[in-house]
Amino acid sequence: MKETIIERLNAYRAEMKKSGIAAAIIPQTDAHLGEYIADYWQVRRWLSGFTGSAGTLVITLKEALLWTDSRYFLQAAQQLEGTTITLMKDGLPDTPSIPRYLASHLVKGETVGLDGLLFSSGEIASLRSSLEKNGLKLDTNFSPVDAIWTDRPSLPSDKVFLHEEKYAGKSAADKIRDILLAVKEQGAESILISDLAELAWILNIRCSDVACNPVATGFLFLSPAGSTLFIKEEKIDAPVKAYLEAASVTTAPYDSVLTFLSALPASATVLVDATQTTYRLIDTLGSRAIPGASPVPLMKAVKNQVQLAGIRNAMEKDGVALVGAFMEIEARLHDGIELTELDVADILTRYRSRQDLYIGESFETIAGYGPHGAIVHYSATPESSSTVRPEGLLLIDSGAQYLDGTTDITRTIAVGNPTEAERHDFTLVMKGHIALATAIYPEGTRGDQLDALARQFLWKEGLSYLHGTGHGVGHFLNVHEGPQSIRLNHVPVALRPGMLTSNEPGLYRADIHGIRCENLVLTVDAFTTEFGRFYRFEPMTLFPWDLSLFDTAIMTAEEINWVNGYHQEVYRRLSPRLNDAQKTWLADKTRELKK
Amino acid sequence: MKETIIERLNAYRAEMKKSGIAAAIIPQTDAHLGEYIADYWQVRRWLSGFTGSAGTLVITLKEALLWTDSRYFLQAAQQLEGTTITLMKDGLPDTPSIPRYLASHLVKGETVGLDGLLFSSGEIASLRSSLEKNGLKLDTNFSPVDAIWTDRPSLPSDKVFLHEEKYAGKSAADKIRDILLAVKEQGAESILISDLAELAWILNIRCSDVACNPVATGFLFLSPAGSTLFIKEEKIDAPVKAYLEAASVTTAPYDSVLTFLSALPASATVLVDATQTTYRLIDTLGSRAIPGASPVPLMKAVKNQVQLAGIRNAMEKDGVALVGAFMEIEARLHDGIELTELDVADILTRYRSRQDLYIGESFETIAGYGPHGAIVHYSATPESSSTVRPEGLLLIDSGAQYLDGTTDITRTIAVGNPTEAERHDFTLVMKGHIALATAIYPEGTRGDQLDALARQFLWKEGLSYLHGTGHGVGHFLNVHEGPQSIRLNHVPVALRPGMLTSNEPGLYRADIHGIRCENLVLTVDAFTTEFGRFYRFEPMTLFPWDLSLFDTAIMTAEEINWVNGYHQEVYRRLSPRLNDAQKTWLADKTRELKK
Repeated sequence: MKETIIERLNAYRAEMKKSGIAAAIIPQTDAHLGEYIADYWQVRRWLSGFTGSAGTLVITLKEALLWTDSRYFLQAAQQLEGTTITLMKDGLPDTPSIPRYLASHLVKGETVGLDGLLFSSGEIASLRSSLEKNGLKLDTNFSPVDAIWTDRPSLPSDKVFLHEEKYAGKSAADKIRDILLAVKEQGAESILISDLAELAWILNIRCSDVACNPVATGFLFLSPAGSTLFIKEEKIDAPVKAYLEAASVTTAPYDSVLTFLSALPASATVLVDATQTTYRLIDTLGSRAIPGASPVPLMKAVKNQVQLAGIRNAMEKDGVALVGAFMEIEARLHDGIELTELDVADILTRYRSRQDLYIGESFETIAGYGPHGAIVHYSATPESSSTVRPEGLLLIDSGAQYLDGTTDITRTIAVGNPTEAERHDFTLVMKGHIALATAIYPEGTRGDQLDALARQFLWKEGLSYLHGTGHGVGHFLNVHEGPQSIRLNHVPVALRPGMLTSNEPGLYRADIHGIRCENLVLTVDAFTTEFGRFYRFEPMTLFPWDLSLFDTAIMTAEEINWVNGYHQEVYRRLSPRLNDAQKTWLADKTRELKK
Repeated sequence: MKETIIERLNAYRAEMKKSGIAAAIIPQTDAHLGEYIADYWQVRRWLSGFTGSAGTLVITLKEALLWTDSRYFLQAAQQLEGTTITLMKDGLPDTPSIPRYLASHLVKGETVGLDGLLFSSGEIASLRSSLEKNGLKLDTNFSPVDAIWTDRPSLPSDKVFLHEEKYAGKSAADKIRDILLAVKEQGAESILISDLAELAWILNIRCSDVACNPVATGFLFLSPAGSTLFIKEEKIDAPVKAYLEAASVTTAPYDSVLTFLSALPASATVLVDATQTTYRLIDTLGSRAIPGASPVPLMKAVKNQVQLAGIRNAMEKDGVALVGAFMEIEARLHDGIELTELDVADILTRYRSRQDLYIGESFETIAGYGPHGAIVHYSATPESSSTVRPEGLLLIDSGAQYLDGTTDITRTIAVGNPTEAERHDFTLVMKGHIALATAIYPEGTRGDQLDALARQFLWKEGLSYLHGTGHGVGHFLNVHEGPQSIRLNHVPVALRPGMLTSNEPGLYRADIHGIRCENLVLTVDAFTTEFGRFYRFEPMTLFPWDLSLFDTAIMTAEEINWVNGYHQEVYRRLSPRLNDAQKTWLADKTRELKK
């Protein structure tokens, strides 16, 4: 493999020489600026051998370097060994940025090459300005990989299927009408959509191009005179074609999008969201591009009544599956049958897959036992997978895609008798979870204003977690979606009724254990007073917390009441779907917590 | 007066005709973009008769209109009656913005005039773009007021005095050195300061040009080759001149600043903060202006050890003064001697003025009895001043300028026996105050992340307040300063050790009462753990809360303990400065609060 990588790099350098390129930048994304991408787009992985989901490769005529963040330092060091590629540890004070590296290693007048279809226009503008300051040039049309990657996978040909309106709750035609009205308010007549989740939501279509994210690879041009979906033709069958035509959407080949855009009349006004659209597309539009914010993320985030009914149903099914799975996990531990982290993931998938309308996992299960629980992005491999012993904490973060909803739940359980320290840590995290779950907040409140409610008890003891407290969740779509977010960083989006968001504070003690407590919560109306309209969160996820981990000595009566009320609701909603043994198990798991 | 206003408007219109101006915009600010301004700058007040602190006048050849916000709707309606000036209620949906009004009332090709010395360059850019879209022109050099305001006050000639280093803790020379280092990091060699509080802080000078804000009117140009203070020469006496010279600062006439800037070499690089510098100055600098953020607000906000010792001393003096004042207020009420809101303000000033190093009030006292307490920006006038009767709530927000520190404190007291509703409201506000006062937060935390801690209990009952929870406070300088802030809106500035901020949640029930509970709090180190560095707030203000207003039934043991701990500290710090009667009074006011 090491030699293969060296050969590939040299073949790439030969192409660079042909085109007069002194350095090339190869990012980890696709033409839709996605984080999770199909094999076709795995150019950086193919050229470097590094499989992490974040990292940028730079190739010069003499060197090759890979910038990646701390999550991947260890993995990258192993995978890059012997490849001649230098690991550049992003975020460390001594690591130069890519532009700074290029400025100090290239000679004035030399050219940096990249594929403008893989960078946002903001990234290009910033890079160009930095290169020009140092007398370097930028070629945004350098994309030689097809010439050397002879067995490059093709773009996915997976069939698109309809997400029926009985699940989606709104027709593609109605969504397009509302979007075009919002586009008009921003002074444009049409809009170009590159984001795959937006595209899937607008058209009520789903596909399997990307693992766990049920999206189809395409571009979508919406205009009052009729819309065009740029997609591989073989992905679309007759029923889908008919549904699209009813929404005035015709299809065209995926790679005809640039030709189409360049042929638009000079008077066209096309709204483009520069954060979601690549440089090449915006550059092709030229003065026809009207920069603005896509109205779609907000529309997509606010779920309608049909979606909410589906999500409630999906949550009940997911809870039932988890009852089965956790009972089996307990039984295996009780009977002394070996149980590894990978086994835990398999058991969860097995029970979920028996539920109605199940499609697959919504992300790769994180089952982190003991110290593995403290690695936030951990997912077990055959090499790493620990055997669970009757002690310590097991963190399980998992979710499913059902046709009627997407789930995402984290429970942390004590495998044996929990220690006082484990109970203390768990209870601090739960106090934060409950503070957020019971918050009432006025119209206009952003997630970043509520974030500290979930962190306050940890902070008081000098503890914290660095990930966000909550992300938006799609409806049979990506498990991470915007625009709302509950986090330390500022996100200028208010929470609105109908938004589904996670509530997942955590605590990670390196080499000891990890704790995360996650429900999905729905923003709903609380009440309206002379001071305005107030919202609250309704918990949507239905599964008990581990009662053995609560330290009631540090809980208020209101907190204990919340746990008991939530557990009563879990039992009320799940028990009609359970058999007697399961009911008995759940009744015990939701028994009253007492001071 | 009404006829006078009409005459002034017509005289102004005659000047407009001479200069070919179809409409003029007259803002309420000075050449330093200040909120509190000297009489010389009160052009809008002189032209309109409206005395409110916020509002913009527009004069066309046929009409005159004043835009102001809801605080001033009533006052403006009264003061504008008979003047021919139309009140434009800012913030109401039917009220057009000034640019929109101009677009619909002027004819293409006409010119809007204003004085570019009274607008930030951001305001001018936005106005110009909006006018140009509608075919209108902008003249930024229209300033005819001297021709018609024959008895215009001159710029203040008040003497500048030194804020000695024994109070300021750092020499002007050292501050200038540090500022120029920070300026260099932003790619400029010099900096132009327009903000009066920054100027005063940098040079360790104070003055009395603006009521309550001890600033001097001037501009300051700092450069490594020597600095220049543009100020009325008669304001500077020999000792001040000598002190400035020791910091390489020479003086020049106030109105020579434009000539000076235009004479700078083309190669000069002058950092200007566009939010604090007027259009005229930036326009004069042209390409020599380097836009950036002034490093001064952050330096000014982080108090040094000498300042902190002074502030602690000022807080003790202020507490002693308040003991005397509140005892007299109580005695008058007890003895049935009439007490009005204005009397309350007078009593406070009388006791404070007896303290060492007292200079004056830091803002106009707000003493709001009953329904007046619910008017957030209330200040009593001889006409409005209520008589305090033995019932209801009295809100007192006041502060002083001492040479060693600036104070700002709000206490809400029950005049008679408080009702259950009054106690409930007060306790909700205090629970928010205590939640913020006891918060611990990691390095990097912004005020807007903590704001919800102070509001959470009100929100749970559908209550809220619309003002910020906390503002920065100057050191013998403006009682409101940035850059940190604890509020609903996003402010991208982290709290740092040494920052002095107010903690002042409130609750305002229209026509009933207002409650606000305010201490100043200092950000200090709490501890450092493996999770990083954590901060907390140290309460600096020293005066008891009204014990009769606490409803301990809705308080936690921790909250009650905090009140008792704070009261013990108040007694410990103030009692050595009190006589026996005062000690007895304070001991009773700080007696233990019990469940």
